[in-house]
Amino acid sequence: MIEMTTKIEVSDSIASVAGFQVAGIDAGLRKQPAPDLALIVMEAAGAAAGVFTSNKVQAAPVILDRALLADHPERIRAVLINAACANACTGEPGMENARSTQKWVAEMLGCQADEVLVMSTGVIGVQLPIEKMRAGIPVAAQSLSATNWAVAARAIMTTDTKPKSASVIADGYSIAGIAKGAGMIAPNMATLLSTVVTDAVIAPALLQKALLEAVEVSFNRVVIDGDMSTNDTLLALASGRSGTAINESNYPQFVASLTAVCENLARKIVADGEGVTRFITIHVKNAATSADARLIANTIATSPLVKTAFYGGDANWGRILAAAGRSGVDIDQWKASLWYDELQLVSNGLPLNYDDARANALAAQPEVTVTLDVNMGSADAIVWTCDLSHDYVSINGHYRT
Amino acid sequence: MIEMTTKIEVSDSIASVAGFQVAGIDAGLRKQPAPDLALIVMEAAGAAAGVFTSNKVQAAPVILDRALLADHPERIRAVLINAACANACTGEPGMENARSTQKWVAEMLGCQADEVLVMSTGVIGVQLPIEKMRAGIPVAAQSLSATNWAVAARAIMTTDTKPKSASVIADGYSIAGIAKGAGMIAPNMATLLSTVVTDAVIAPALLQKALLEAVEVSFNRVVIDGDMSTNDTLLALASGRSGTAINESNYPQFVASLTAVCENLARKIVADGEGVTRFITIHVKNAATSADARLIANTIATSPLVKTAFYGGDANWGRILAAAGRSGVDIDQWKASLWYDELQLVSNGLPLNYDDARANALAAQPEVTVTLDVNMGSADAIVWTCDLSHDYVSINGHYRT
Repeated sequence: MIEMTTKIEVSDSIASVAGFQVAGIDAGLRKQPAPDLALIVMEAAGAAAGVFTSNKVQAAPVILDRALLADHPERIRAVLINAACANACTGEPGMENARSTQKWVAEMLGCQADEVLVMSTGVIGVQLPIEKMRAGIPVAAQSLSATNWAVAARAIMTTDTKPKSASVIADGYSIAGIAKGAGMIAPNMATLLSTVVTDAVIAPALLQKALLEAVEVSFNRVVIDGDMSTNDTLLALASGRSGTAINESNYPQFVASLTAVCENLARKIVADGEGVTRFITIHVKNAATSADARLIANTIATSPLVKTAFYGGDANWGRILAAAGRSGVDIDQWKASLWYDELQLVSNGLPLNYDDARANALAAQPEVTVTLDVNMGSADAIVWTCDLSHDYVSINGHYRT
Repeated sequence: MIEMTTKIEVSDSIASVAGFQVAGIDAGLRKQPAPDLALIVMEAAGAAAGVFTSNKVQAAPVILDRALLADHPERIRAVLINAACANACTGEPGMENARSTQKWVAEMLGCQADEVLVMSTGVIGVQLPIEKMRAGIPVAAQSLSATNWAVAARAIMTTDTKPKSASVIADGYSIAGIAKGAGMIAPNMATLLSTVVTDAVIAPALLQKALLEAVEVSFNRVVIDGDMSTNDTLLALASGRSGTAINESNYPQFVASLTAVCENLARKIVADGEGVTRFITIHVKNAATSADARLIANTIATSPLVKTAFYGGDANWGRILAAAGRSGVDIDQWKASLWYDELQLVSNGLPLNYDDARANALAAQPEVTVTLDVNMGSADAIVWTCDLSHDYVSINGHYRT
């Protein structure tokens, strides 16, 4: 079972979540005027959880947040997020700058510096514009309100073209989140930057467990280009203000609701990936193991030849089989069958006599599902990916300029 | 030691190699008129060796050639190469078609069908245009001459913009080869299609050993897009006509000469990769193991973000460290140092105060070397790769149309 059976209604916006106040302001960190500094605050210190990049090169905020959550996940008050600078490959000065921003936020909120989590996104190898952040933090603190989620979502964007938010009203509590994505997206890490909040009452360890379950079938399904950031972080905060406690009986619903928010954000990240013109679901069926299924799906999803063929609306399915064949998984080409949506193109390694014009039309759709049945067992995997377009090259050829 | 110490003179063309006759003719396999069928023939059956794709999805000619070389590598007479159709994912009819072409060549040469190796390149999932090949093979046989190498090199091109050939005159014998490349190029396989010939006297097992040694530091260093073909094949044939036998004393020179030919062809494949504007050498130094060094280098070379930054002439070195960090190798970011050519940008994970304009100018050169010292041991790896350009997307978005 890899799909949810009950449909949960997800809103694309966030009204408010009890116990949270947020802000998004222009601290002058970008070249152009735009919100670039977000602050998410709980009324009182509460539970938090996090999932982080598995890249060995990690930004200062990742190193800091990991340590805080390992030490006192029950006592977190706020998250500060800046765009325009990743604070990665910045050494001890970068750590010191991150700690300074924690301290400045703590001074405004009247809390301890170690109750403030930080996130950064932008160019690597450049120090934080620390004086601008020192000036911006009080402005952000004064702008805090329960209904500022839209501008906060906007403040964390980099090459995203749209802000990304999602919320669910569950039985006695709410869950909501914002995210930024666009590039450098690969599986087996947290995700880009995302913060998810809830007013449920939940212990940090259970929140962490729920977050890992939700990530596995949402953010970890996303593959844009196979690159993995030094900064990817997903945080979850629980204010407890709804009074609804998560226990054994309502935990499944909590996970399902959290997953729905994460899935909504993850899909938006793919759909708004750099230069994306197609949302492609890769469904690998009947592999020997889940790891095999995932590896095949990821290899297909990161193949430049597969991605450019979809961009061109060309049903060049041989590239999909070729990618599966080089994935490292021991597949048998004479057992593989392939579909674009409901149209079967290949049966047991051989092309069927299908309508090529129809196959090309399917490949050219804004959304298409590729199903590859390798017929080696019973394990499935789904990943969401996108095409590789001229715009991806344009955006990333001149990212810093 | 990964570099050769003695410089061997390599010619970009092939005059002739004793004991070989070749042809390249237009059999009407392509949409436009152009040579598309090549035939390479030894005067008498002799020794051969081969290296093949490690893709689990393998084309009919790969399956056939592997079996022939496993059975009687001492008795090979010819190689037939067609462009425009890969004969991959074509099942038993594809195998039957490949066997028919062997038989037709054998009839023309008066040899056994199992003395004929075959290679195909082009679209996957389509059967060979077998009647055109039946008609073309006698034309090719009648066109055989010792000096036809240039047109043979042209006949095997797909999206290559230039034919690729190389030759070396060694001490008492010659080595020469032709190759096609352009896309779907990844390490740990043979290569695209390439045939290398020599008039030296060499036993099949020794020829195979020499070929593997040469491939390791030539074709296996090439990374274009990380995709690996179903058809990649490198064959070596030895006519023995020079009378010079390869033995223990001149084997090192033979390997060096063979490597020089393979390196020349491999570099041409990168330089003529689809849409390539930069030839990038990735040199990873001081990894814990050779496998680590290779994995880091390959991860950098296949990173779309690294490749697009080079296309844009943007010295966005953070992407190189981020790729190394996600390679799966346990590196320490505070030990990594990075150079573009002679300009050091990063020392122990921290950016130096270098001239950014100069770094961008280096990144924008037609040829640049990136050196990453991870300082974890003493193993090195070198790979040759290229940028990812708008033209790559254009070429591969509409390959079949």
